[in-house]
Order: sequence, then C-alpha cells, then structure tokens
Amino acid sequence: MLDYIDLRYKPGKNDVVTEYYMEPNRISFEKACNHVAGESSIGTWTAVHTMNPSIAKKLRPSVFDINKKTKEIKIAYPKELFEAGNMPEILSSIAGNIFGMKAVNNLRLQDISFPKSIVKSFKGPRYGVKGIRKLLKVKNRPLVGTIVKPKVGLNEKQHAKTAYEAWVGGLDVVKDDENLSSMKFNKFNKRIKETLKLRDKAEKETGEKKIYMANITAETFEMLKRAEYVRSLGGEYIMLDILTCGWSGLQTVRDKITHVIHAHRAMHGALTRNPKHGISMMTIAKCSRLIGVDQLHIGTAHVGKMEGSAGEVQDIEEKMHQKKSKQNTPFHSLSQDWYGIKPVLSVASGGLHPGMIPTLIDRMGTNIVAQFGGGCHGHPDGTRAGAIAIRQAVDAKLSGISQKEYAKTHPELAKTLKIWH
Amino acid sequence: MLDYIDLRYKPGKNDVVTEYYMEPNRISFEKACNHVAGESSIGTWTAVHTMNPSIAKKLRPSVFDINKKTKEIKIAYPKELFEAGNMPEILSSIAGNIFGMKAVNNLRLQDISFPKSIVKSFKGPRYGVKGIRKLLKVKNRPLVGTIVKPKVGLNEKQHAKTAYEAWVGGLDVVKDDENLSSMKFNKFNKRIKETLKLRDKAEKETGEKKIYMANITAETFEMLKRAEYVRSLGGEYIMLDILTCGWSGLQTVRDKITHVIHAHRAMHGALTRNPKHGISMMTIAKCSRLIGVDQLHIGTAHVGKMEGSAGEVQDIEEKMHQKKSKQNTPFHSLSQDWYGIKPVLSVASGGLHPGMIPTLIDRMGTNIVAQFGGGCHGHPDGTRAGAIAIRQAVDAKLSGISQKEYAKTHPELAKTLKIWH
Repeated sequence: MLDYIDLRYKPGKNDVVTEYYMEPNRISFEKACNHVAGESSIGTWTAVHTMNPSIAKKLRPSVFDINKKTKEIKIAYPKELFEAGNMPEILSSIAGNIFGMKAVNNLRLQDISFPKSIVKSFKGPRYGVKGIRKLLKVKNRPLVGTIVKPKVGLNEKQHAKTAYEAWVGGLDVVKDDENLSSMKFNKFNKRIKETLKLRDKAEKETGEKKIYMANITAETFEMLKRAEYVRSLGGEYIMLDILTCGWSGLQTVRDKITHVIHAHRAMHGALTRNPKHGISMMTIAKCSRLIGVDQLHIGTAHVGKMEGSAGEVQDIEEKMHQKKSKQNTPFHSLSQDWYGIKPVLSVASGGLHPGMIPTLIDRMGTNIVAQFGGGCHGHPDGTRAGAIAIRQAVDAKLSGISQKEYAKTHPELAKTLKIWH
Repeated sequence: MLDYIDLRYKPGKNDVVTEYYMEPNRISFEKACNHVAGESSIGTWTAVHTMNPSIAKKLRPSVFDINKKTKEIKIAYPKELFEAGNMPEILSSIAGNIFGMKAVNNLRLQDISFPKSIVKSFKGPRYGVKGIRKLLKVKNRPLVGTIVKPKVGLNEKQHAKTAYEAWVGGLDVVKDDENLSSMKFNKFNKRIKETLKLRDKAEKETGEKKIYMANITAETFEMLKRAEYVRSLGGEYIMLDILTCGWSGLQTVRDKITHVIHAHRAMHGALTRNPKHGISMMTIAKCSRLIGVDQLHIGTAHVGKMEGSAGEVQDIEEKMHQKKSKQNTPFHSLSQDWYGIKPVLSVASGGLHPGMIPTLIDRMGTNIVAQFGGGCHGHPDGTRAGAIAIRQAVDAKLSGISQKEYAKTHPELAKTLKIWH
C-alpha cells in the first residue's frame, strides 16, 4: 500500500482539502490514515499491477496534518481526482466507502474546502439572501414564517386557510412540512391552487409580499412537474428535502427551474448527530451552497427541539453568508473562498416559540428566516394570534423592549409567554 | 402532546411498520416514544389549534411494541401518512427529523415493513436475478467480476485494456469504481467507447457474454444522457452510487432507462455503521429493491475489508431474494411480503481475493456476484492471471476440491494463495 502521509506538504490552490475525525481499529494511526486517504482516492487494500508511478505522482493525496490527541487528520487531494460540477461523484470519493472500512472504528467528515475550479463548476444560489429580501421587500428584520401543522392531516382547503391566517397575522412565509407532498387527502395540485389563491388574498389585504414554500419532494421529473405547476399559478418558491431526495435530484432542480429554493434537511441527524462518525452539518451546508439552494435549514442555535450547539450553528450561518471563510478550529471548519457564489439565507426552525426570539436573534442575528410550527398554531387563540405574537416578539426585540414589557400592551404575545417558557 | 403508545394495537394490512433502536435523552422511555412517533407523522412539540380529533383518529401512529431492555420499539403508521411511490417523502417521515431531536440521544431505524399498496406503487427490478442470469447465460455458479483499479488514474485506453484482460481471463463482469465518472484524463464517453469495443472483442474470443458496468453517477439528466450513450454502443448495464446520488435520482433512473442497474452503496457506512444511530443497511436494501435496482452491493459477510457481520449480510441477502420474508429478531429485520417485486442479485465486494472464495460461498451461496479489485489486479502476473485465478478458485469450490489441492495443477491460483492468506 502507498504511504500518503507527508507532513511537510502544504495544500495548494488546486487541492480539495478535507478534515476527518478518525479512530483506527486495531491498527496504528498512520496505517489508518493511509487506508482513509487511499480508499477515498486511488488506493485499495493491496498493491495492484495496474498502478504506475506517474498515476501515483499526479493523483496521490497527502495526509498533511495529523493530531493524534484530538484524532483529527487533514488530507489534500489533487482536484483531478474529482469531476467538477458532479457532487455525487465528489462525495463518493471523500465521503464514500471509507465510512465502512474495518480499518477505522469511527470516522467523521468534518469539512471540505474546495478549490476555485470546483467552486466555479457549481452554480450557487440563483437568488441568495439579497434576492430573497428584494422579493419580499423586507430589509432589516428577520423573515418570519410558519410550517403548517399538523405535519400531515389537513385537507387542501384547511391547509390554505391555515396559511392565510398565518399570513394575515403578519408572517412572511408559510412552508409545507417535510413529509407533506401529495397525499390522498391533500393532493399537491389542489393544495397549491387553494393556498396560492389565499396567498394572493392575504397580499391584497396586508399590502405585504407573502411567500408559500410548496414541498415538491419526489422523484426528479415529478419534482420538476410540481415546480412547473407552482410557477403556473404565480408561486415563486419551492422547497425540497435535500437529503432524502439526494444530491443528483438537487442539482437537477437547481439546473432546471428558476424558483427560489428552500432546502429542508430531514434525515441530516442520521449523518450529523454523532460527533465521532458520519458527516458534519457544515459539510452538508457547504455542498448545498455550492449547488445553489437559496435558503437552508441549519438549526436553532440550541433554543428549540433540535440538537446543534449555538457555536456550531453560528459557524455554519457565517459560512453560508461569507465571501471568504476562515478556518474555525474549535468547530472543525476549514477556510473557503466562495469565488462569487451567492450567500445562502439561514433558516432557524424546530420547536421555536415567540419567547425564544430574543435569544435566537442574539445568537443568529437578524439575517435569518425564523420558522414557527407549534409555536404559531399552538397559540391559545389559534394560528392568526400566533402569527401576531411572533411579529410582536420580533418588533419588541428590534425595538430593544423586553418581552415582559411589550406583552403588557400586546395581548397575543402575553398569552404565548404564559404557556411557553 | 398526543399519546401514541398502544401496546394492544396489532399492526394491520394497511400499516407501515418500523423498528427503531432508541435511547431517550433525559426523559422517560415512553415520552421519547411519543416524540419519535409524533415527529415522524402528525405531531410536533406542543398541542396545536389546527389538530382535530378526526385527523388524530385517522392518522395517528401506534407504538405497539416496547422493549426497554434492548431499547427497541416498533411503530405502526397508517399508510395514508405516506405518498405511495415517493421514496424521498416516505423517508422524510420515518427517517427524517427524528434523528436530530433533543428527545433522543441515539436513534436507529432498523427496518421498515411496507404494506401492499406501497410495495405495488414501486416498480422493483426490471431484470432481477433471473433476468441477469439469462443475459449472461450463466446458470449456477456465482458471477465473478472486477473493479478496474486504481480507482481513478488510468486513461480510457488503459481502462479498456485492463477490462479486456479481466474478461479474457474469465471474469463475467467489469465495473467502474464508485468515484470514477468523467475525469479530465478519462472522459466518460471515450471510456465507454473504448471499453465496450474491447468487450465485444473479449466476447468473440471467449464465446462468453461479458458485462461492463459503466458508472453514470452524476446530476440526473447527465445520468440519463450517459446511460443513453452506453445503450447506443450496445451496453446493457449501468451502475450508480445510489446514496450519493440519492433516492429521487435513483427513482428517475429506474423509470427512464431500460438498462440493468447495479447499485453501489458508497457512503452507506456513514448511516449504517453505528449500531445505535442512523439507518440500517437492511433499510437501504429494502428501499433499493422496491425502487428497482437489479443488483446491490451488500457486503462480504465479514471476509473482506469492509465491516458487516456474516449474519447481517446473510439476512439482507435472503430478503433481497425472497418472495415473502420473515421477521428475524436477532438482526432486527421485519417481515415483508414482496407482492411479486423481483429479487435483487446480491453483490459481494470489498477486499476480496481468491483465497476467500470458499468462505464467501459457504456464507453467501452461489447466487451472488463476487467482485475482486485488488484481489484481481494485484496478482503477481497481472490482471489476466488474477482473473484466471478467481475462476479457478470458484471452479475448485464448486467441484468440492480444496484450494491447496487445486492449486497444484493451477499455477495462477497457486500464486495468489502465496501472497494473500
């Protein structure tokens, strides 16, 4: 087997760089490094007759950083090992077989840093943060939204009515839930038609731009068909579950439609949750920005029902916005020059209620979409009151007034503060 | 929050049933059950105004089996919760947000059992085991193949030449590696052209049917384009990395092309490796059979470089072949009636060499494709000798002759037995 360890190697402008957390399985740390570097590039478990020195010289990766104490390694791969513009292929290399090798007990891909030619081979967001804010005509405050609840169960008209209540209550965005696609009791086309009709009504009544994120999650051609239907009725937005649909489908959706794309991350926890094994949320977020989702669910900085530390979520949020990102060692993220790829709007969602808004804004800032499911429809007086309370909570925070104080003159907010602490 | 626990509930013919391994996070086992059941169906973290008793009655899942000792639970979901024929949607429900909830420390989806209407909504393999054997005109022995090595690095002509050597040495199948798609030094179209040309030559010279699995892994439309090119030159087979491409893309490939589909599982270990968290290989295999891959890489029953116990791999192999599958409690797999969905051919691959063939056949039988990468091209006399040795090892095993004995008169096998033990 080749020796890929070269601690004097300095990654160059044409390298893909990865960081892994790695626990060897009954072999030396160095040997495990070589297994990971080889299996993710040009190697296999034994020397092969078909290998030659010129291939090895041109394509060999370099394990250039080893920290046995923290069990972290960094590998630089020549970009020629990858097909630019082909995310599935890139991940099959550096996030492929290696997780299943006996040579390691645990292995986690912490981050990837891409060189210019690979970054530029992807399209990035069509709209990004600026495009979304322009569409909504909302400049400085967080966008606020809801997910229709229950996740599935309402029929098309009930769904549309719930969305309407949320919009007229003051929310900007209404989103389908991740598992709502085209159900027997809530067919996609009918839902879109009913909901966009009431969106138009809500826009007229409020004078505000209102957004409906229709969940097109399905087989690829079906997704394109559903997106087309949304467009035909004046919808500008779609959402899809990027991980259960997968990278090929996501690339197709980005290529073939012109909607704003909201990325839901259902299933991410199966990959991201374990700090010792799998693939980090940062990696998923970076690949999503490159391909070109306009907004991405990244977590709630530890205030809601989903795990994810504030620091990690903040680091992801920054890297979704920046033009150039720096290495952030405590959170295992690498530097990245985004070469003009537009920023992605971060979405905070999962168990949020109005009482969490001050902390959420303290931790994530105002350049986010904050989504409330139960925290809207669970308001004692229903969805509209829930929506009003959410806008009140945002207004209070942005005016520098405490929620307790603001609640004195804002009964909708007052009621939510009573039931959720 | 609703209480979904109903230990008297008996799953019916219209239920989707799942088994999870679950570790609660600072809450009771029962509470965690309710979080998992709710978040994967109709619930959220709080009561919502928009829920009503008729929705709850019609769509509520039932946690009908709880084993606190083994930390296993089983949940039955009414099929109306899912969109038939839409695998991403199904997984967004039962393999979605739940992995990221604070309510659990670890959660693993062990298996899913689908009811008739969902099974029948998918196409299953177009060819399956019988179709593949008919195409190859090989009845009883394992199909044997190689993956061209190094994984990437050879140019188109070198690739084709290596494939040719393997075919004339006696292998049935040559497969691209999972990270070889269209590289700067090995373009897809040129590789396919060169390789299929030499396949035709090898077929003429050997009188045997030879198979080339071209890796089309890419964005969806690009995959279809590449498959079309393969077909235009007389190729019958394609392969793709089903997990890095994703379920939407896989469904599209199954729908739109008529090739035999080989499924590589690169990245599966990120999901399947941890026995306490993620998604089992059984789940991935079942979803793949439903959608309709013809053959699937399932592991090597613990003889090669990849993890996966013999028992688990055998259980998956059985369930890929059976018409009706029984529950297998030690391996956490559920019963499944396949309602006429064709069997999938199991592929064993990962660090195999000829010396492992007897154990491999003992454990996995003869109805498999056995793939050798380094174990073919690592032969001291090169690829062709490696291929000859592999066929010899199979012949010895099927004739009931020990490898040691057979090697006395078969020098190619003898040489591999000397270097690999």
